[in-house]
Amino acid sequence: MTPTLGFYDVVNRRRDTRAEFTGEPVAPEVLERILLAAHAAPSVGMSQPWDFVLVRSPQTLRMFRDHVHCERARFGATLAGERAQTFERIKIEGICESGLGIVVGYDPTRGGPEILGRHAIPDAGLYSVVCAIQNLWLAATAEGLGVGWVSFYREDFLQELVAMPARVRPVAWLCVGPVGELPNIPDLERHGWRRRSPLASVLHEEHYGAR
Amino acid sequence: MTPTLGFYDVVNRRRDTRAEFTGEPVAPEVLERILLAAHAAPSVGMSQPWDFVLVRSPQTLRMFRDHVHCERARFGATLAGERAQTFERIKIEGICESGLGIVVGYDPTRGGPEILGRHAIPDAGLYSVVCAIQNLWLAATAEGLGVGWVSFYREDFLQELVAMPARVRPVAWLCVGPVGELPNIPDLERHGWRRRSPLASVLHEEHYGAR
Repeated sequence: MTPTLGFYDVVNRRRDTRAEFTGEPVAPEVLERILLAAHAAPSVGMSQPWDFVLVRSPQTLRMFRDHVHCERARFGATLAGERAQTFERIKIEGICESGLGIVVGYDPTRGGPEILGRHAIPDAGLYSVVCAIQNLWLAATAEGLGVGWVSFYREDFLQELVAMPARVRPVAWLCVGPVGELPNIPDLERHGWRRRSPLASVLHEEHYGAR
Repeated sequence: MTPTLGFYDVVNRRRDTRAEFTGEPVAPEVLERILLAAHAAPSVGMSQPWDFVLVRSPQTLRMFRDHVHCERARFGATLAGERAQTFERIKIEGICESGLGIVVGYDPTRGGPEILGRHAIPDAGLYSVVCAIQNLWLAATAEGLGVGWVSFYREDFLQELVAMPARVRPVAWLCVGPVGELPNIPDLERHGWRRRSPLASVLHEEHYGAR
């Protein structure tokens, strides 16, 4: 298998993982490799504005899971009919089962007052953090691990839970761990929530709307 | 070479490319592969809220480059002393040299009114778009291409330049093309703007600040 094929295999096998965690711990050397991949991400003005908080305390995992379940109910209450029924079947997190949460934060003060490339687009720092998350996710996939990005939470709750200072914004809770398998079909498609679109539907030539 | 090694090789060879573009066109099948990799990114509620506008018109490339040069001067004027001198030496874009700009947009209306996973964090849709950008960047690296993310621009200028509707937010201009080489050391480090930090400086155990 060529390196190029290997790379695309990783891209296409990556899944948002919820139900498949085995609960086994991630080997320390594997965890270091996926964190190093995250830390090798591009960042605006080389500010590397990310932080990673590794959470394994069962008590903290349970507290976060309980909060996420409240937010799940809150979203569920806004749905009706088929949408409500379909959502009911979908598992949205594997927080306790994975045994490891990686909370990713964005520190806009990292790199000093003059960030090269951020003066016109303040969110460019936030974009850097997400590049690190995607590197981590792909690296975990290459290592045979599952990753589930949980976004059913309030930022102030998570910030307080892991004692992030006010300047650091929580960007993600990632459930990370060994999995029995990675499904071929994304959960949301399998459960009939939504189907993937063809590439052509988001491509434009020279100007938006021109195909 | 194992697929795993191949993957990390891609992560570590990736560079923000400015000076190394040869100006040769990207082969259509290669461009399709890197766009498919972008389109395979994770997205909140499977909304796939990204758009890609492929810009090759020399006139449009020049207009964008001229705008970027104005923004470069604007940022440069805020610097003094060593920072100003160091910035002077740094090339920040390869817009015309690369011959291809990929403008990436975020459409928050994609996927209907009920986006699973976005009710508590509106920016989750924006995060999806950045995951797609990072997939594209790594795929281009695996293909031996260079990518340069330009962020010296005003969003309203770029939106108008490629006729994006008001609802679609420009997230990136990516210069993409064949390169003579990918530098080992990032430009900003080589020019003395800033150095990469060790992973340990951004890692925390259980709570922020605990090492």
